[in-house]
Amino acid sequence: MPRVVIVGGGFAGLNLAKGLGNVADLDVTLLDRTNHHLFQPLLYQVAMAGLSPAEIAAPIRSVLSRYRNVRVLQGEVQSVDVQRQCVCADFGEVGYDYLVLACGSRHSYFGHDEWEENAPGLKTLEQATEIRRRVLSAYEEAECSTSPEARKRLLTFVVVGGGPTGVELAGAIGEMSRFTLARDFRNIDAASARVVLLEAGPRILNMFSEKSSSRAARDLEQLGVQIWTGSAVTKIDEDGVEIGNERISSATVLWAAGVKASSLGQAAGFEVDRQGRVVVEPDLSVKGHPRVFIAGDQANFTHQTGRPLPGTAPVAMQQGRYLAQLIRDDLAGRTRKPFQFVDKGQMATIGRSRAVVEGGGYKLAGFFAWVIWLVVHIYYLTGFQNRFLVVSKWAWSYLSFRRGARLIVTKEWRFNAPRERPAVPETTTRS
Amino acid sequence: MPRVVIVGGGFAGLNLAKGLGNVADLDVTLLDRTNHHLFQPLLYQVAMAGLSPAEIAAPIRSVLSRYRNVRVLQGEVQSVDVQRQCVCADFGEVGYDYLVLACGSRHSYFGHDEWEENAPGLKTLEQATEIRRRVLSAYEEAECSTSPEARKRLLTFVVVGGGPTGVELAGAIGEMSRFTLARDFRNIDAASARVVLLEAGPRILNMFSEKSSSRAARDLEQLGVQIWTGSAVTKIDEDGVEIGNERISSATVLWAAGVKASSLGQAAGFEVDRQGRVVVEPDLSVKGHPRVFIAGDQANFTHQTGRPLPGTAPVAMQQGRYLAQLIRDDLAGRTRKPFQFVDKGQMATIGRSRAVVEGGGYKLAGFFAWVIWLVVHIYYLTGFQNRFLVVSKWAWSYLSFRRGARLIVTKEWRFNAPRERPAVPETTTRS
Repeated sequence: MPRVVIVGGGFAGLNLAKGLGNVADLDVTLLDRTNHHLFQPLLYQVAMAGLSPAEIAAPIRSVLSRYRNVRVLQGEVQSVDVQRQCVCADFGEVGYDYLVLACGSRHSYFGHDEWEENAPGLKTLEQATEIRRRVLSAYEEAECSTSPEARKRLLTFVVVGGGPTGVELAGAIGEMSRFTLARDFRNIDAASARVVLLEAGPRILNMFSEKSSSRAARDLEQLGVQIWTGSAVTKIDEDGVEIGNERISSATVLWAAGVKASSLGQAAGFEVDRQGRVVVEPDLSVKGHPRVFIAGDQANFTHQTGRPLPGTAPVAMQQGRYLAQLIRDDLAGRTRKPFQFVDKGQMATIGRSRAVVEGGGYKLAGFFAWVIWLVVHIYYLTGFQNRFLVVSKWAWSYLSFRRGARLIVTKEWRFNAPRERPAVPETTTRS
Repeated sequence: MPRVVIVGGGFAGLNLAKGLGNVADLDVTLLDRTNHHLFQPLLYQVAMAGLSPAEIAAPIRSVLSRYRNVRVLQGEVQSVDVQRQCVCADFGEVGYDYLVLACGSRHSYFGHDEWEENAPGLKTLEQATEIRRRVLSAYEEAECSTSPEARKRLLTFVVVGGGPTGVELAGAIGEMSRFTLARDFRNIDAASARVVLLEAGPRILNMFSEKSSSRAARDLEQLGVQIWTGSAVTKIDEDGVEIGNERISSATVLWAAGVKASSLGQAAGFEVDRQGRVVVEPDLSVKGHPRVFIAGDQANFTHQTGRPLPGTAPVAMQQGRYLAQLIRDDLAGRTRKPFQFVDKGQMATIGRSRAVVEGGGYKLAGFFAWVIWLVVHIYYLTGFQNRFLVVSKWAWSYLSFRRGARLIVTKEWRFNAPRERPAVPETTTRS
């Protein structure tokens, strides 16, 4: 029985596994280092306390449990041996006849990995919870502080990177300060928080048209976000960021700039581009390995437009479904057709009730674009329960201006462990 | 303007702050080391993946934001200075005219603090998430393992302590294995998981009648839980537990045995009992300090029954409300009345749809008791949103046998950090 091994339970891997579910005489194994599929387009909502982790994540094994020929194993794949046709995971080896790597991407700090400590990125639930902790703790510490400089630093938030994630994060912080938190503090004015969005290029959302990009910039500025374009970060430390000679003093810096692909492709000896993505053939296979495929963020597919396809959910989903069909065709002795991406457009949201949407010749902005954004995202959320709960929660947040998940959860679960709390420099006295 | 300082935002502190909200000419400060009030009676549901943290926790400052005279500060109180009338927190000092300590309790390992690493207790959201991670990870590792001994160890769960929390945890693990997870695994039979509940005394739920206690034991056994009474733990390590000469090999041990009060009362020089609870006067004040009060789990109040009141939510809520009235009486020049606890009964739940309820001469068990348990708990959940979402989620879980929050979230948010995964001893090979 042919064995298909899929590494990664993201949009590509999950759609592939579903497409191969209950195919007779096929043994499918999906490996992932976490136990959950993550709906990444809404991850910023977890970071911004609008949603709980469980609302945008579903256990992979539960999503796939109805397919009796699919096995899910939680483990980290450490290497691929194309000669022996097996992958080596932390618990042991798994042999394959067909292998699909769909391991996604992670943040790239452009050679400055030491920045991660002070500027977390947003790719996993753990990172989202950490960002939430930092943002909410900054307000809490500002409330306890009496030094104007410390307060200013604590209430300054810097987001690095003007792509969709950066725009969504900056918009959400701006909105949270102005609406959600405004009434809750006594010593500070939460609405006076400063949010700076740094973009190295000439404009934010550069994959959109200039018109949509400037509309998004205007919407962000209405939420109090300052946009600095042409501002490449040169240093990040615990006190803030530097852009050449300028310095912004900030306790909370978030990273939404570059990404690089999983290193597994390069380690296997495949041809990769500068971002670590594996260069693939028109059928997503690796040159010289017709039964090894790459999908999603990890693939560099240039055969359609001459440029690599972007690392987005629609690309990954279509590639996953395409590979399921390809493997079924292979087994049935049919010839392979090349992958063809159907571009349905792109979208980004700015706070509640504003978005920009583009595709197929149309451009939309404002409330109606946001409704489209909302419908599309809810439609694609995996599993009815999540969809229903997310809709309830959003309806509630929208009507009440509250955020339901404003929890600061630390990393430490033991009582006697040292508590992590960045020291507030001065001692304050109240009487 | 008199200053009231409340330490702790649990049931006692929150009810007290609400009772003093918008009282003219009163300045109220509530200090807590977390930013959220936690509905502890449902914490085991978070540990058992039935609920998300945000559904049983609400930001204290959001709950109290409507009271303009109440200020909430997140900080850890390190000491109390009754001479200078101030508390010393990590961010500075806060002076008081009235002080109420309601800092709750934590787990006690009876002098074996080293057990905590291998047997986490359940008092905070962080601990609940950690327990969830351990329990779910045990199944995941068992699925990847091929050694029968390793699998057996991984699928054996030990709960230490036969009080309500231990009973709820053991019941929920038994139920999760038999119903929720049964279909999701391919290599292991999740339903064969072994759950052992250890109780040092002669019976579980010893605060209930013998009849209710034995009914609960029968219900637990139907869920596959083995109950070992008269079994005091003598050792816990990473491979399991020892009870005298006997040894249970288990990868997941949970602690629900003893508690001890916050050490703040003892450190302040107040008279405490063996569990660290401060012995209080009939008006909950500390002897010799008529304006310093203790409430909730931290208080040892014996004036009503001759024995200390139990550390439960109803006691804490009533004490909080009582102290609000007492302080208002004080300010108005009225004499203080002693605290009087109104006992409305007690309850414990065993899996879905079974519970035991006792009080005021009535004893109930089974489905109807569970409905009462459900209604009471939903009624007391703070905030409409949570209540509504929890009801939706429960209705869904009940009808579908699914658990919505089955996420394994690790403590590490950085990509390059070493990944925590207990090594599975043997290397397995699949082909």
